[in-house]
Amino acid sequence: MVVRAAVAGASGYAGGELLRLLLVHPQVEIGALTANSNAGQRLGALQPHLRPLADRVLQPTTAEVLAGHDVVFLALPHGQSAAVAEQLGDEVLVVDMGADFRLKDAADWEKFYGSPHAGTWPYGLPELPGGRSALAGSKRIAVPGCYPTAVSLALFPAYAARLAEPEAVIVAASGTSGAGKAAKPHLLGSEVMGNMSPYGVGGAHRHTPEMIQNLSAAAGEPVTVSFTPTLAPMPRGILATCSAKARPGVSAESLRAVYEKAFADEPFVDLLPEGQWPATASVHGSNAVQIQVAHDAAAGRIIVISAIDNLAKGTAGGALQSMNIALGLPEDTGLSTIGVAP
Amino acid sequence: MVVRAAVAGASGYAGGELLRLLLVHPQVEIGALTANSNAGQRLGALQPHLRPLADRVLQPTTAEVLAGHDVVFLALPHGQSAAVAEQLGDEVLVVDMGADFRLKDAADWEKFYGSPHAGTWPYGLPELPGGRSALAGSKRIAVPGCYPTAVSLALFPAYAARLAEPEAVIVAASGTSGAGKAAKPHLLGSEVMGNMSPYGVGGAHRHTPEMIQNLSAAAGEPVTVSFTPTLAPMPRGILATCSAKARPGVSAESLRAVYEKAFADEPFVDLLPEGQWPATASVHGSNAVQIQVAHDAAAGRIIVISAIDNLAKGTAGGALQSMNIALGLPEDTGLSTIGVAP
Amino acid sequence: MVVRAAVAGASGYAGGELLRLLLVHPQVEIGALTANSNAGQRLGALQPHLRPLADRVLQPTTAEVLAGHDVVFLALPHGQSAAVAEQLGDEVLVVDMGADFRLKDAADWEKFYGSPHAGTWPYGLPELPGGRSALAGSKRIAVPGCYPTAVSLALFPAYAARLAEPEAVIVAASGTSGAGKAAKPHLLGSEVMGNMSPYGVGGAHRHTPEMIQNLSAAAGEPVTVSFTPTLAPMPRGILATCSAKARPGVSAESLRAVYEKAFADEPFVDLLPEGQWPATASVHGSNAVQIQVAHDAAAGRIIVISAIDNLAKGTAGGALQSMNIALGLPEDTGLSTIGVAP
Amino acid sequence: MVVRAAVAGASGYAGGELLRLLLVHPQVEIGALTANSNAGQRLGALQPHLRPLADRVLQPTTAEVLAGHDVVFLALPHGQSAAVAEQLGDEVLVVDMGADFRLKDAADWEKFYGSPHAGTWPYGLPELPGGRSALAGSKRIAVPGCYPTAVSLALFPAYAARLAEPEAVIVAASGTSGAGKAAKPHLLGSEVMGNMSPYGVGGAHRHTPEMIQNLSAAAGEPVTVSFTPTLAPMPRGILATCSAKARPGVSAESLRAVYEKAFADEPFVDLLPEGQWPATASVHGSNAVQIQVAHDAAAGRIIVISAIDNLAKGTAGGALQSMNIALGLPEDTGLSTIGVAP
Repeated sequence: MVVRAAVAGASGYAGGELLRLLLVHPQVEIGALTANSNAGQRLGALQPHLRPLADRVLQPTTAEVLAGHDVVFLALPHGQSAAVAEQLGDEVLVVDMGADFRLKDAADWEKFYGSPHAGTWPYGLPELPGGRSALAGSKRIAVPGCYPTAVSLALFPAYAARLAEPEAVIVAASGTSGAGKAAKPHLLGSEVMGNMSPYGVGGAHRHTPEMIQNLSAAAGEPVTVSFTPTLAPMPRGILATCSAKARPGVSAESLRAVYEKAFADEPFVDLLPEGQWPATASVHGSNAVQIQVAHDAAAGRIIVISAIDNLAKGTAGGALQSMNIALGLPEDTGLSTIGVAP
Repeated sequence: MVVRAAVAGASGYAGGELLRLLLVHPQVEIGALTANSNAGQRLGALQPHLRPLADRVLQPTTAEVLAGHDVVFLALPHGQSAAVAEQLGDEVLVVDMGADFRLKDAADWEKFYGSPHAGTWPYGLPELPGGRSALAGSKRIAVPGCYPTAVSLALFPAYAARLAEPEAVIVAASGTSGAGKAAKPHLLGSEVMGNMSPYGVGGAHRHTPEMIQNLSAAAGEPVTVSFTPTLAPMPRGILATCSAKARPGVSAESLRAVYEKAFADEPFVDLLPEGQWPATASVHGSNAVQIQVAHDAAAGRIIVISAIDNLAKGTAGGALQSMNIALGLPEDTGLSTIGVAP
Repeated sequence: MVVRAAVAGASGYAGGELLRLLLVHPQVEIGALTANSNAGQRLGALQPHLRPLADRVLQPTTAEVLAGHDVVFLALPHGQSAAVAEQLGDEVLVVDMGADFRLKDAADWEKFYGSPHAGTWPYGLPELPGGRSALAGSKRIAVPGCYPTAVSLALFPAYAARLAEPEAVIVAASGTSGAGKAAKPHLLGSEVMGNMSPYGVGGAHRHTPEMIQNLSAAAGEPVTVSFTPTLAPMPRGILATCSAKARPGVSAESLRAVYEKAFADEPFVDLLPEGQWPATASVHGSNAVQIQVAHDAAAGRIIVISAIDNLAKGTAGGALQSMNIALGLPEDTGLSTIGVAP
Repeated sequence: MVVRAAVAGASGYAGGELLRLLLVHPQVEIGALTANSNAGQRLGALQPHLRPLADRVLQPTTAEVLAGHDVVFLALPHGQSAAVAEQLGDEVLVVDMGADFRLKDAADWEKFYGSPHAGTWPYGLPELPGGRSALAGSKRIAVPGCYPTAVSLALFPAYAARLAEPEAVIVAASGTSGAGKAAKPHLLGSEVMGNMSPYGVGGAHRHTPEMIQNLSAAAGEPVTVSFTPTLAPMPRGILATCSAKARPGVSAESLRAVYEKAFADEPFVDLLPEGQWPATASVHGSNAVQIQVAHDAAAGRIIVISAIDNLAKGTAGGALQSMNIALGLPEDTGLSTIGVAP
């Protein structure tokens, strides 16, 4: 089986990471690569780490260019995916790496994104309860946000097992690639090196409703989320510290048992041995998720910490994992749990 | 007035930062500099950034060497300060930059540090309620831990004003100098660059009881603290994200009003204008504390974020500020709110 | 004596560093602060590390705004200084932190900068032979480039003492602040962290003719310079590795003797003890220059390595040092050799 | 064909990188993993990024443990390889990633390493003239040093084509993993972040004679090398700036033509298009070598700049490439020119 794949938005960080992974996917043949303002340029000038594709020239993002592929990945700015997807036909697998089709609640979408809601597609987080069945055979996939990936995987078992009160508190640190490749002064190397700072504090970050959606579904009741993202001086990686009040009767043992059961068969989730903690460096470039749990009896809380690569499992790796499921390929085809460290 | 100061532990990061600040303190004359294993070496070989002191030779840490000074700063490993302090006499101002005399509860000390409690000295965080009067004229000062400094300043106004429920959730990122200068594999540059990881999760960090002590005092009731420290890829700085459930009736306006009042006359606390968030780079090398507050109505929580330089306001700057008060000098003598950025 | 100083270009990195230093200069009173596109903004929003000036509002860069000061610092894009300087009058000390008045050779200027040559002002590198006398009492100062500062100080003694053949080979690493605050994709944190790359290779960098000018003057004959700048993953600092073939008879001892003599009385040049090497971290935020020399007998070359802070001694500190000389103040007024490390 | 491979020294950076690559080599089956002081530990505790091997337990480095493999990789401290290799028998392919068998000149070895010379093995840099034929079928391989890999590939074409005078000047920046995993104070994250510093200046670095050996062989005459290594604030990567005086008649065109011819068929050497410069981030985790050349007519020099990943092409990737040749496998089996960026 050969899967011919096009990538719209190939000059950005998400597109570049996707190409890095597609290059080693044994079933994928890389087709059209498109861009907006960078159309006409050699990919080698924009993604110099992708040597096998260096001489490819970026084409404009049009339906004509994207036609004739089995899979089309959309790594476009928010709000642009629907128009492109409509023109691609129902038989093409369209994988949207943007936010457009993640949320089920139109009002949430409009509140956080300020535009009309385009719809809801099957959600590309296979590890969630029912996640795989929603993706199998689907022709549309909404790839989760990077923070919701890290946070949902950390907390859904606790909520599904009724271990935690429905008020989650999350503080996460992200590498700068999560903010994209557009040149903005606060993302300059001079500004971010040696610096930690928060943004989108107090519920303002657009990934908040997506976390609420996932955790509430797992809990079977509405879960509130206090989410504080911070920008860390590293190119990649998310470390999410997630906690909630423990329900009565929770112990370190019962907590760990729930997580061991939840992830026993997951190919990409690495519940670490007791005493070892997640580190973003360990999942650098890999599709693995490192998770560890703790029960703070004095504070009455459970703490779950997860580490992912925001571009890999958090975006492009997650997209590919879901594509594999949708196409009926083994889920881990072309994906790895081997990080590049140190 | 000339204050003759000795520094025990001058070869470490805390000692080095203290010397950096003492060098520009107009009243201080730097006396004996001592070390343990580094005794006998030129300071220039160990602290090459302190050029005016490059030719000083480190002496052994003994009562004889430390005698004859007005102030003795102790930057020693935990558990060593009491024995030294006893030999220095009651007329000498002893400023302990270690943990030995911070905690009031002997059981807490023994649980977290595993040795007999040495006692409790006036606590060197002047901004806390009653903080300055406890220090004025004192001959003994316990310098707070770096995390408790960042966290207590962030949250005490909310607790003192009864805005927050007594269950604080804190996630903080620290630069690597907070872990000291002892060579350990996990602190190698190869390990920490490009990496975020937690440690001491679930209430295990030794600074937890100190935070509980401070916040409970402010609240007038016991406050629990869920504290997760993380190691960030930067040499200096702490960013503390602190939150608690808002008590009924709290609004963004009432929250901000409380903080404006609390810090109106504080020379080193910088409650940022609305819309601007703390950044560790902005306080790099400075004694300033940047603070911003948010009320997340949807999650029902108040979030307070603070940024300090862990070595400056978090250790050596805080020590100097308290020394100024104890000696009756203007509190900001020799201290600055100007950071070194970018 | 109170010196009233204006800063044109106060929102950039050079302007910000100058303000950081002016704030602690005992004779300076900070007057007008101007900007181009940032005029009208609070300085606190742009330079959040300069808390004492946070509420200052930037004014437009006009002769009216800059009038009435004793000193005007120009931190403007290349080619804009001459027009401003002309309007300020001959009695005002104008310190140009741009390149406009550094080069003596008009053809060099036009070749490297592509515009008509504006003239040549006294050159603000006091450590060069004759450097101080050219500055004393001057009303115009051309502040050297950051790389020429590091390189000229490293090599002029060897050339002045006829130790080196007139063909210098220089490779220097600079922190990213040297590239300024304008948002460009290749300067994003995601691009520069974990990355070293060269630029302006093969003689293309604009600082090359300035190095040639300085070294040729020291040597008394034309010196060629092969200069390769590289961008390093750090916000500040220049490490310059400078070498040239040793002339016959040069030994490690004669080389060191020349350097010891050259810098014996220099307040800011730190010829390190044998066995210790320069490190940019040691001069972070300081006006010091660390230098070390080596004689490679097998390769027949002398190697001189210097470290400076590109924003401090390399720009703003050097500007202030020259201002002190021009105004007859002690040369080190308001300047420090104490770095902020780690 | 299944190649059973053992790795001695699996807990260090070189061993870890080798395992990362072996895990995706389609012909290799990973056998014994050994260590010295870390024997008995789970690999997951020491190399947490290698999840598929997490439960492997390190064995002691003995001939018994290493017996029964087709290939044995030695990632041991200098001076330990000969004793192990002798016990492994002549039929086993032994790949020494240490320095022991790189140098041909016993006096050079003794001068730089201070111990008796163990011998000389076929040199694992296939791109050098005659490199592949020396490796084909060999049962012993000496993997080059990381700096000599970057430097020799950059300069051998110029020397082989008689374009350059036999006096090379090299300044290289290396990530910290090149210094290994042993905990030393100057390699702490607090020390290396935000810092550039040189070491081994003046011909003292042990890789110097290896560069001289390679470049002299290419030139057919003795070449002197002035080599200055610097430590850069990044975990991986080497950027080598290499230059030499151009011989009469050299032009930019002739220089480029020589390099295009030299690398036309090289699978891992990426002579970049004109105008594009090497960047270590582009080869992060990859076996590619980026090279660019320049002719500085004014200075009369050719400049060649190369970028490699010190752990990949500079150590483990180079080892694997040579193993492939020795075993008669396609040279690029299991190796990639795709970097992990940003």
